[in-house]
Amino acid sequence: MLRSDSLKGETTAAQIMDAAASPSAPLHPFWPRDLLIPSYVANDRSMSEILVFLFSVSGLLLLVTWLVTGSSGQLGTWRRLAVCWFAVCGFIHGVIEGWFSLYYDVIPGDQSFLSQLWKEYSKGDSRYVIADNFTICMETITAWFWGPFSLWTVFAFLNNKPYRFVLQLIISLGQLYGAVLYFFTEHRDSYVHSEYGHPVYFWFYFVFMNALWVVIPLLLIVDAWRQMSTAQTFADRTHKAKRK
Amino acid sequence: MLRSDSLKGETTAAQIMDAAASPSAPLHPFWPRDLLIPSYVANDRSMSEILVFLFSVSGLLLLVTWLVTGSSGQLGTWRRLAVCWFAVCGFIHGVIEGWFSLYYDVIPGDQSFLSQLWKEYSKGDSRYVIADNFTICMETITAWFWGPFSLWTVFAFLNNKPYRFVLQLIISLGQLYGAVLYFFTEHRDSYVHSEYGHPVYFWFYFVFMNALWVVIPLLLIVDAWRQMSTAQTFADRTHKAKRK
Repeated sequence: MLRSDSLKGETTAAQIMDAAASPSAPLHPFWPRDLLIPSYVANDRSMSEILVFLFSVSGLLLLVTWLVTGSSGQLGTWRRLAVCWFAVCGFIHGVIEGWFSLYYDVIPGDQSFLSQLWKEYSKGDSRYVIADNFTICMETITAWFWGPFSLWTVFAFLNNKPYRFVLQLIISLGQLYGAVLYFFTEHRDSYVHSEYGHPVYFWFYFVFMNALWVVIPLLLIVDAWRQMSTAQTFADRTHKAKRK
Repeated sequence: MLRSDSLKGETTAAQIMDAAASPSAPLHPFWPRDLLIPSYVANDRSMSEILVFLFSVSGLLLLVTWLVTGSSGQLGTWRRLAVCWFAVCGFIHGVIEGWFSLYYDVIPGDQSFLSQLWKEYSKGDSRYVIADNFTICMETITAWFWGPFSLWTVFAFLNNKPYRFVLQLIISLGQLYGAVLYFFTEHRDSYVHSEYGHPVYFWFYFVFMNALWVVIPLLLIVDAWRQMSTAQTFADRTHKAKRK
């Protein structure tokens, strides 16, 4: 995968038209425009098909988890929402990102549904179609650790396990660190892997979809911190009382 | 920074001699041998000076923390050792890695003591002298978050704060994730940034020094998990007893 040193900000519509007319035109929708992705095959699924799949499966999981967590009557609204979040994370990490971690090397030319999903997403971050080293490592850890751990967290809250907030903290910090590195590396790369400022690809796919994994984990880390500090205060008091 | 596509494993001593005799010879000790680092200035401090500094400051901090944690008589041997570990981490993350996070762009040509330390270490991983994007991002987070947090953890254990194990878990998981990504990215790069198999540079600098931040954090995560689960069991019982 090669690119010239021209700055993204200096690429004009006219230059893109020129490039499209030249024999070395990039036959793909990714940025920077001079990336070479010889194996690329254009999607035959539309953006809406892909988004409908992603959001309807996530929505269905959220609904099922909401109903299941309500049956005992022991969990409050916010706790139920947090458990729903982990159920959705289990799906997105385990299935969507799991697919990427296994097939990143064939995705540009593959027409399986999930490969098409990744080609669509890559319009907002081409590191997913050029097998970027950091991206593959981070996604592999996310898929194979935070994925199964998310489902374990759902189980832990449904069964009131004493380690439930430890798991919540581990996954949330793992997600947060991954997302911070994801944004930080791209920031230092001057956002060249996306059409900077594009309302859908840059702002919705790249910024918004990933910012969820900064904001929600931060809230859940603060929540776990409070819950576990309170529990430790109890334990410390009991320990002190026993000593007296 | 450029390199040819020759495989590291195929580079022989003869090839290195040839390269040294040619006008484009690399005038640095880093791998792959065809890296171009025009600003490089050779260290005037010896390896032993640098290692003596690193290990004597770490050893002194360990000793002081050992004495301070013993004064109350409340902490056991393992807990005291864990607190000593966080004191050493505070120094290594905050000072050594903090220096890298600030001066990575001038280190190859700089003769300050800590820049020389990084040039010495880079014989085991040249990503530190080529301003590798992932390395800079990971080290910046390590220096500015896990550094101060490590010192906060020392304070938290000395004062028996209820959040002490939460901090222990956060830092240990952060260190572990950073170290895993560090090894994983280099594994996928086929260990080209070091002389593969070199007893000092590869095995001691690159493997051993970093493996510490895999093994010790793993132990401390398991420890924090147990401590916080026990505390939660206390809190859940109290909560249940109150309800009855």
